[in-house]
Amino acid sequence: MRLTIQREYLAQSVQDVMKAISSRTAIPILSGIKMVAMEQGVTLTGSDSDISIESFIPAEEDGKMIVEILEPGSIVLPARFFAEIVKKLPQDTVEIEVQASHVVLIRSGKTEFNLNGLDAEEYPRLPQIQEEHVFKLPTDLLKTIIRQTVFAVSMSETRPILTGVNWRVENGELICIATDSHRLALRKAKIEMEHHLSYNVVIPGKSLNELSKILDDTNEAVEIVMTENQVLFKTKHLLFFSRLLDGNYPDTSRLIPTDSQTDVIINAKEFFQAIDRASLLAREGRNNVVKLATLSDNKLEVSCISPEIGKVTEEIQCEAIEGEELKISFSAKYMMDALKALEGTEIKISFTGAMRPFILRPLHTDSMLQLILPVRTY
Amino acid sequence: MRLTIQREYLAQSVQDVMKAISSRTAIPILSGIKMVAMEQGVTLTGSDSDISIESFIPAEEDGKMIVEILEPGSIVLPARFFAEIVKKLPQDTVEIEVQASHVVLIRSGKTEFNLNGLDAEEYPRLPQIQEEHVFKLPTDLLKTIIRQTVFAVSMSETRPILTGVNWRVENGELICIATDSHRLALRKAKIEMEHHLSYNVVIPGKSLNELSKILDDTNEAVEIVMTENQVLFKTKHLLFFSRLLDGNYPDTSRLIPTDSQTDVIINAKEFFQAIDRASLLAREGRNNVVKLATLSDNKLEVSCISPEIGKVTEEIQCEAIEGEELKISFSAKYMMDALKALEGTEIKISFTGAMRPFILRPLHTDSMLQLILPVRTY
Repeated sequence: MRLTIQREYLAQSVQDVMKAISSRTAIPILSGIKMVAMEQGVTLTGSDSDISIESFIPAEEDGKMIVEILEPGSIVLPARFFAEIVKKLPQDTVEIEVQASHVVLIRSGKTEFNLNGLDAEEYPRLPQIQEEHVFKLPTDLLKTIIRQTVFAVSMSETRPILTGVNWRVENGELICIATDSHRLALRKAKIEMEHHLSYNVVIPGKSLNELSKILDDTNEAVEIVMTENQVLFKTKHLLFFSRLLDGNYPDTSRLIPTDSQTDVIINAKEFFQAIDRASLLAREGRNNVVKLATLSDNKLEVSCISPEIGKVTEEIQCEAIEGEELKISFSAKYMMDALKALEGTEIKISFTGAMRPFILRPLHTDSMLQLILPVRTY
Repeated sequence: MRLTIQREYLAQSVQDVMKAISSRTAIPILSGIKMVAMEQGVTLTGSDSDISIESFIPAEEDGKMIVEILEPGSIVLPARFFAEIVKKLPQDTVEIEVQASHVVLIRSGKTEFNLNGLDAEEYPRLPQIQEEHVFKLPTDLLKTIIRQTVFAVSMSETRPILTGVNWRVENGELICIATDSHRLALRKAKIEMEHHLSYNVVIPGKSLNELSKILDDTNEAVEIVMTENQVLFKTKHLLFFSRLLDGNYPDTSRLIPTDSQTDVIINAKEFFQAIDRASLLAREGRNNVVKLATLSDNKLEVSCISPEIGKVTEEIQCEAIEGEELKISFSAKYMMDALKALEGTEIKISFTGAMRPFILRPLHTDSMLQLILPVRTY
């Protein structure tokens, strides 16, 4: 293998595939980046066997020469060193040449690195996915959907299925649900698909977080392919594979209350800031719990007492409070996470008593919902 | 005590005195900020008993009302909470009122905090310094001097005196020296002073780092007062006290070679980048050592071999190489620290053989010098 490549394209591609590479891997070759040079361009692959990322650098793009392949071939490079070296090379162009015994010469200007590589034949094969049925989402919408749900997955391996986000496709709609059994995030979106197919899979939260980091903020479509045990996200030059979680996701629909006793319409930002301030003292307690009480004249009171430090109380003027009086306690962190995810200015919070889960939604759409279980303190 | 204060002034002042407050203090009251309200304004104090910082907020500045003192008094507030609360209060104005049992009411808009404070009478007194003799340095020069020396102090408590920077004042000149016995940084500067006095003190590296963080990038003068066991830095609204280290600083003048066998004139930035690249592999070795060798035609070769990862070699074109051929090895980290501190474009490196300390200086000034001990590998 021998080639010349534009450094900035190589650096971007390396940075993308590095997202899949773990510093602690049981399979030594997976600490490397596989590089394959063919006439059309160069393909880089990184994997931790749960996530695999393939990035393609075309020989030419928009009439600009990016890679010159002098001799096709393949090699596995030590990922961490290769990534740092590429970042720090002195010139815009980099020469890469595989020599005897898998030694790789990397030259730029008067700088020469010789890195000990590994045989690309030893690198595990990526999952083969037959792309019969795909559906599409704009990149920016995909990132929003991930952001609005993934924070609610469970961090505990007690119930592994809850560490993933449930993606269901039915009737031309994608429904994403995450819950750690103390709170739940739900987001729906219409999707483009040719055949009306149904899927019900659970994607690891970690995979979605990494995918989100790697995607640009464009509205170009991402193609999504689902199989029994893998999901593939495809953009122009990137393939992102993730394994799916085994098992059935619990039915969460019965958790979501359909009636309500107290409805509050409130400015999300003001409410967030009040909870944030109360949380300064609540964090000192063992569970970061704040109290909320309805007052007269459409006012809410947020409060928190920490016997050692002191106390905080705050009044918030709401747009409307309808229904019964209420005193309720909940985790400040869950509330702040939910308010961040909703990103609306005016939201509606529907309570069904102090001991029942309550839900938050934007005022004018039912495409998303956040649910929080209260904490018993009153 | 009762007062109203502009939040942004209070926040800045709190942030400044927080620099002196340690999260782990043996004296509980030092985890607090002392606040004293007098007719002229408010004084905040933070201290970890090594460093003490006093910040003054005047009642009025440039015709603008900053503090309104309704009742003078004093209190000690829990520092960490108070700092976070002040940052997050909703309005531009904050009311602070000490109530019974040292409870402090903090009100802004509809937000009310009640914090448990402590009696200000219990707070340790700051060192009393008689300001008979001061000298002055522009703030930006003081920050530069600190930056160019403090990185070279010892991190080990084996010889505590080396964890400080030696400041000597003689003949209207300040000479600052730091060494960890593997490398040395020296910086001189002319100072303004009325009486020609001499000082020889050792200021803890940690104090200088904190001082540097707290100073603005202005050229206003900082007044410096030295006593037997304290140094005081004074700016318009800030007093920064640090204890001095006990003991005599070693005489380092005999360490600095006066002759040389090989002189290299080189672009500091190009040299830095070459060392930085070689360091990518050198860091894997136990001591981050790179090799340097003179070549013909005013060229240097930087190289490093890591048996497991690979090797790197790089040629650098120098402005001039004079004297004997040389092969030498040294710590890449020490070289990069020294080159960063010198901040010159062209520098001169003077070697006296492979096993003797070598020195780096900017080409056209002798106000600073960096010395590095080589490592035996050739």
